[in-house]
Amino acid sequence: MSTDSPPSGSSGSSGSGSSRHVPVVVVGAGPAGLTVGNILRAGSVDCAVLEAESREFIERRPRAGVIEEWAVRELQRRGLADNLSERAQRHSSCEFRFGGERYRFPYTELTGRHHWVYPQPLLVADLVHEYVDVRGGDARFSVRDVALHDLDTARPSVTYTCPETGERRSLTCDFVVGADGPRGAARAALPTGHARIARHDYGIGWLALLAEAPPSSDCVLFGIHPDGFAGHMARSPGVTRYYLQCPPGDDPDNWSDDRVWSELHQRLEGAGSPPLTEGPLIEKRVLDLHDHVVEPMTYGRLFLAGDSAHLVAPIAAKGMNLALHDAFLLGDALVAYLDGGDGSGLDDYSEACLRRVWDYQEFSQWLSEVYHGTSAGDPFRAGTTFARLRRLFTSPVAAAAFAEQYLGTAERY
Amino acid sequence: MSTDSPPSGSSGSSGSGSSRHVPVVVVGAGPAGLTVGNILRAGSVDCAVLEAESREFIERRPRAGVIEEWAVRELQRRGLADNLSERAQRHSSCEFRFGGERYRFPYTELTGRHHWVYPQPLLVADLVHEYVDVRGGDARFSVRDVALHDLDTARPSVTYTCPETGERRSLTCDFVVGADGPRGAARAALPTGHARIARHDYGIGWLALLAEAPPSSDCVLFGIHPDGFAGHMARSPGVTRYYLQCPPGDDPDNWSDDRVWSELHQRLEGAGSPPLTEGPLIEKRVLDLHDHVVEPMTYGRLFLAGDSAHLVAPIAAKGMNLALHDAFLLGDALVAYLDGGDGSGLDDYSEACLRRVWDYQEFSQWLSEVYHGTSAGDPFRAGTTFARLRRLFTSPVAAAAFAEQYLGTAERY
Repeated sequence: MSTDSPPSGSSGSSGSGSSRHVPVVVVGAGPAGLTVGNILRAGSVDCAVLEAESREFIERRPRAGVIEEWAVRELQRRGLADNLSERAQRHSSCEFRFGGERYRFPYTELTGRHHWVYPQPLLVADLVHEYVDVRGGDARFSVRDVALHDLDTARPSVTYTCPETGERRSLTCDFVVGADGPRGAARAALPTGHARIARHDYGIGWLALLAEAPPSSDCVLFGIHPDGFAGHMARSPGVTRYYLQCPPGDDPDNWSDDRVWSELHQRLEGAGSPPLTEGPLIEKRVLDLHDHVVEPMTYGRLFLAGDSAHLVAPIAAKGMNLALHDAFLLGDALVAYLDGGDGSGLDDYSEACLRRVWDYQEFSQWLSEVYHGTSAGDPFRAGTTFARLRRLFTSPVAAAAFAEQYLGTAERY
Repeated sequence: MSTDSPPSGSSGSSGSGSSRHVPVVVVGAGPAGLTVGNILRAGSVDCAVLEAESREFIERRPRAGVIEEWAVRELQRRGLADNLSERAQRHSSCEFRFGGERYRFPYTELTGRHHWVYPQPLLVADLVHEYVDVRGGDARFSVRDVALHDLDTARPSVTYTCPETGERRSLTCDFVVGADGPRGAARAALPTGHARIARHDYGIGWLALLAEAPPSSDCVLFGIHPDGFAGHMARSPGVTRYYLQCPPGDDPDNWSDDRVWSELHQRLEGAGSPPLTEGPLIEKRVLDLHDHVVEPMTYGRLFLAGDSAHLVAPIAAKGMNLALHDAFLLGDALVAYLDGGDGSGLDDYSEACLRRVWDYQEFSQWLSEVYHGTSAGDPFRAGTTFARLRRLFTSPVAAAAFAEQYLGTAERY
């Protein structure tokens, strides 16, 4: 970390003029922001977390659900996984269904590693509880009009409107963590031309569904079907996530419950498998699949983390894992600098994150082709897609390479 | 093989009316056709090979140069690799160059398997010699206006114009092997609507160059450069194949020798590597990269083999290997049927070939992205392409999976 200003140390915050000072302001209380906050608290670095939504809202908002084993281990090591370790489901295989047949891919048998299914709102609730109630962290919910200032100086600040009083408040700090998503204040604070935003549009829509119905398989199901992709992912004993490929920009109103279940049954049919268990559909949204990456992930004293720096389509369930990876690196780097004056972690932060980001983006594109290539109406794509799929089940080394990317277990991270 | 007509046996040809009869007519004397001819002769099945070019021409025409180890073993097993075994170069690694650095991929160290470099005209000369001069096979060169007839009957025929007399000749047969390339008479004989032709256009051109210059490295070089891809492949101690990415449809006249060497030096630069050895450019052609696959590869008594059934861009040096794979299967299947009445090989022929065809097409597309993705002007593609490349050199399982596809060594074939 190159800076002329000495770190403000770990001794906590101090008032300064009209605005309070705190070493780190974290914008956004999602998995990334809350994990950074918890790491800072564990490192005795004071911080404030600002969140535009209420605590109740973020603890219920349905989002991702798969956490990779390395991330679970990191959360455990940092005392952030007590509930998760007890309640998460440990998955050991996934299943591709195509041509009416079932092809189970037993990744744990191949690698000894697992996937963990734990809905994001549960993780967020755990992280908020630990940060606020256990570690005594400062979190301000339902704040409005967050704005970042003077990021290219040694003393940036963050202003916001207090939800109770309607007053404008200001926090000066040494560092801002931007973890408020792609449409948040942190991303908006990047000056034009500073960062390059690389984008990819799949030209594909997914109807994202949450069903109040028990999962119909003990593993994730990928339906490769002439009508388009369908996915089945357990979320909890009573809730299942389903996806149905649809035209991008499609209206969820085009998808009656009857049509949804009929398509799910058809696209996820597998020889001898019991029919899907139906239930009320409590979420029905159309996602247009796209990715983007902000490079670098830093600007002056602003460090972006999670979706505010990179968005990855839910194709391979990588989003929350990338957010956690950023947060582990950033939390440790901030503590190392603010507590010990070691700036190397902050200097390396963007590059270290982006290696995994690009690797996961590349895998998501590869897997997208497996999901979507056979129904694209192009016989050449169908032929190469089936070759990809077939290889997973006929070549042990191809299976091992797939498992590594699917589980995110490469040693080099 | 489902047929009402008994096999005509292995007793050789017999005159019948105005046209001579021979069990198998092979159209095209490339690696596929000549390999089938040699296998038939070894199995005491009579045949005739028809070729539109002269023997001298096909023994010199520059084409492919890489033969995969399994194909070398098959050629050896069938007595078709005496010269090859003595004279081919055995390669054990390839090298990617990008960002001015060299990244050697030591596939033999990883797998114990090699690549063999042996120019196609040498292999063709060996196969012609063995077929005509050793095994006494019937080969008719420089024939004109080849046409296939009655392919959907048990007694097809092939007509052609004799180069010496200008007379029209006819051969009736039990089977026709169509091995005369994508623009040949065999492909043209497929009735409209019978086969599906799946096509892929890369939208990329390669300037294909042959230099009378010794190779500048003991291995294949892939230059990944902002200006575009460049490749270096040894052909013989005095001849080197080079490729330079260029706009599709580019005019070779746009590429002066000076410009060619300047771009080759730039795109293939690697830290500490000696400069390329220059020499006269004896071939300068623009290839528009595209692939296609004919499905099924059969029609009645016509069996397509090699480029007449599938074209694969030279991206991964797969074309001649697919031709040989077809030929081994088809030669054996024809002998099994004509000599022993076992039609299972002919029944399975198309499907068995197409598994490898699609696998190699998929790999060629994957590798094309590695070659061309970073210079495409799309920062997202550049990011995912570098992730692919990086993975080859950081993940042992990814390296193993790549080596398997690069060397064509999957056990399932």
